[in-house]
Amino acid sequence: MSTQATLKAEISTLIANKDFAGLKLKLAPWLSSDIAPILSELPVEQLAMLFRGCSKELAAATFSYLEHAAKHKLLKTLTQAQAAALLNELPPDDRTAFLNELPLDLAMQLLGLLTPEERKVAQDLLAYPEHSVGRMMTLDYVTVQADWTVREALDYIRTHGYDRETLNMVYVTDAAGRLLDDIRVRRFLLADFDTPVRNLMDGNYTSLSPNDDREKALVVFRKYDRTALPVTDPDGRIIGIVTADDMLDVAAEEATEDIQKLGGTEALDEPYTTIALSKMVRKRASWLVVLFLGEMLTATAMSYFEDELSRAIVLSLFIPLVISSGGNAGSQAATLVIRALALGEFKLRDWWRIMRRELAAGFALGCILGAIGFLRIAIWSMFSSIYGAHWPLVGLTVGVALVGIVLWGSLMGSMLPLLLKKLGFDPATSSAPFVATLVDVTGLIIYFSVAFLIMRGTLL
Amino acid sequence: MSTQATLKAEISTLIANKDFAGLKLKLAPWLSSDIAPILSELPVEQLAMLFRGCSKELAAATFSYLEHAAKHKLLKTLTQAQAAALLNELPPDDRTAFLNELPLDLAMQLLGLLTPEERKVAQDLLAYPEHSVGRMMTLDYVTVQADWTVREALDYIRTHGYDRETLNMVYVTDAAGRLLDDIRVRRFLLADFDTPVRNLMDGNYTSLSPNDDREKALVVFRKYDRTALPVTDPDGRIIGIVTADDMLDVAAEEATEDIQKLGGTEALDEPYTTIALSKMVRKRASWLVVLFLGEMLTATAMSYFEDELSRAIVLSLFIPLVISSGGNAGSQAATLVIRALALGEFKLRDWWRIMRRELAAGFALGCILGAIGFLRIAIWSMFSSIYGAHWPLVGLTVGVALVGIVLWGSLMGSMLPLLLKKLGFDPATSSAPFVATLVDVTGLIIYFSVAFLIMRGTLL
Repeated sequence: MSTQATLKAEISTLIANKDFAGLKLKLAPWLSSDIAPILSELPVEQLAMLFRGCSKELAAATFSYLEHAAKHKLLKTLTQAQAAALLNELPPDDRTAFLNELPLDLAMQLLGLLTPEERKVAQDLLAYPEHSVGRMMTLDYVTVQADWTVREALDYIRTHGYDRETLNMVYVTDAAGRLLDDIRVRRFLLADFDTPVRNLMDGNYTSLSPNDDREKALVVFRKYDRTALPVTDPDGRIIGIVTADDMLDVAAEEATEDIQKLGGTEALDEPYTTIALSKMVRKRASWLVVLFLGEMLTATAMSYFEDELSRAIVLSLFIPLVISSGGNAGSQAATLVIRALALGEFKLRDWWRIMRRELAAGFALGCILGAIGFLRIAIWSMFSSIYGAHWPLVGLTVGVALVGIVLWGSLMGSMLPLLLKKLGFDPATSSAPFVATLVDVTGLIIYFSVAFLIMRGTLL
Repeated sequence: MSTQATLKAEISTLIANKDFAGLKLKLAPWLSSDIAPILSELPVEQLAMLFRGCSKELAAATFSYLEHAAKHKLLKTLTQAQAAALLNELPPDDRTAFLNELPLDLAMQLLGLLTPEERKVAQDLLAYPEHSVGRMMTLDYVTVQADWTVREALDYIRTHGYDRETLNMVYVTDAAGRLLDDIRVRRFLLADFDTPVRNLMDGNYTSLSPNDDREKALVVFRKYDRTALPVTDPDGRIIGIVTADDMLDVAAEEATEDIQKLGGTEALDEPYTTIALSKMVRKRASWLVVLFLGEMLTATAMSYFEDELSRAIVLSLFIPLVISSGGNAGSQAATLVIRALALGEFKLRDWWRIMRRELAAGFALGCILGAIGFLRIAIWSMFSSIYGAHWPLVGLTVGVALVGIVLWGSLMGSMLPLLLKKLGFDPATSSAPFVATLVDVTGLIIYFSVAFLIMRGTLL
């Protein structure tokens, strides 16, 4: 790793000195894909100078590694012709992702810089829904035909395969381009040259559809441990491939999105450290306000019980304790169910099984907390008169209310994500704070109802 | 995909009929790694019969695809000799992962079944810390020496590479086994046969240490978009490799762990749908009880304000609203910071930058909620006398308290994960419910203090 730091410093100096001959010499022995991550750490101003000097291919590889903001900034410092050259050279999947994050007018302007051929590719990819497999396809793959010999295939690979990043799989098609199989390149390497490609086939492959959601692709990748999967159109023709290293980014993004939603904020869609403060406040405020409006119902609910409260002020002491316990139980259940859904562990039609589990778990958890709550009040009452002479009633109210509220929280927390999914929403929207808020309001009603039943005629 | 279902059904029938000759014929054209995922979906009883008939290699590949529980069950149905043959054939990384999840006595018993050579490999891998890179290394890689020619290297690969799953990278070492470079196998394929391997090298590679945490490896993988990374010992000798497809599983597991902790439960470490109910209740109860005990402080805090409460019962109406808003703001901040830490977006020493952001964001969010809260009380008071003649004071109290509590929640939520990390704990432990509970207690104190300042001499 230390050589990389040195190398970066050397390149930086060469650029600063405008020593483009020396720079060319320094970069010559490198594969673009190997040095691009190092170059991508240079400041944008240096990158702009570098891009004027180095090959289009290297510029494109480096560009792909930049953060969105740096890409944007860099493009603005390049001339129209340079930008066009760079954009035409970008891998189509990276280009699509970049264009998609730009304001529409700028994206259209950049699309106009592409050659008709590349523009067609870009528009085809952009036609797939956001977060679909189609959007992240790469066209860097090699196909051979089933009736070729291994020698013909290898000759073809040698001619067409050099700049393919993902040569470890070779795709076999019929004359019409319909996918018949995927074969590891090593099998060609190890086979007799005169064998027909057909003899290497086992007819077993898994393919994705370009309209599949990328989360579905993640599940397939995890299941089959492949480094790449082919994408086919409805006629079975191969139209692209998706690679496992790109799926790592998808996995991280999808997890980030789910985690942020679970934390009760809109997904930021940008790194926390670099997102503009105003944008972050907006994304957080929207949910906070929704939760706040929901939570206002607690004030409404409580005003109905104002009489009871004024007669037994002791009841108010346990309100935060009791309702937050329901919220916590709900958060747990929602989180577990949402994650299990995202991992494809169960289907919606299994809701009854989940409900039964949560009924059992919620009741057990409620009993544990209820017992602790009652004990707490009993023990305190031995040393102080804070809860009055009727402390057993207070303890009983808190204990019984806890059983009900924790059970109710677990049920709401587990069923709400399923309901949201059923209705076509993202289940992660039923975030922990969202469930907690719902349970707060209903929890108050449970608490006061239990209190009314237990304390009627004594404290109330 | 439909062919796979047919194939599975056919195999299942062959096994049921004990037609082992037919089975052998059916399986013959397949690569183990291609058919294993299909076979792994058969019921355990059929698998046990299959394993008696098929090659050790295929049995091992299939075994690797099973869930832990199925593995365990299957091993028990095999004879000692069959189990030994199977275990010796398993890829070392899968074997380590499996042994590690077994009770110690059973694991030791199975270790005893291994050949001395494989036992050494297993013990070496088990010596690395859990969740370390060392634990997930595979030994399936090919090394060649820098002073060989491409022809010599290719001959060596042909002889030693056939059963290597990850042939797309070839590792170049010196005579002492120290890693000099990693080269894509296609470069050998495309190079002149008499070129020395040294000439293909660019000296640029990224390697991992076996003691690195696997989360760190994830960050490196995402940064460099590689399909595999080499692992070296302190002397720079290559001792294994880690592959991107395995990292996908790690990414999913790490995200699940973080998500579950964020949701306020211990990580389940098993799928939600299959974990025993009692185990799940235990894992959830531990955190719920901790949170409950923490939340009890709210009852204590409120008892100090009982006098104020009885004088201005209106104050109690807004307690859930005010403190939950602080909790929600804290959840948001904690979630964002924990995820950014996991993705390596910033370092601990940047805490001051985070704090400044959260101070600003928290103040802005607090003002928004405070304003809405004041308005709510003002508008209600136009139509009802529920908040009494002093409603402007009530509104002011709620509004000002909200600013303070949301600001405080954002600060706590963002700084707590950093503090935990600094102290060597997992930052994800400062889950949303945990932060919410802390903010509940402190929020009450802020609320009543604000009330005291604003209402002294009037309502209080």
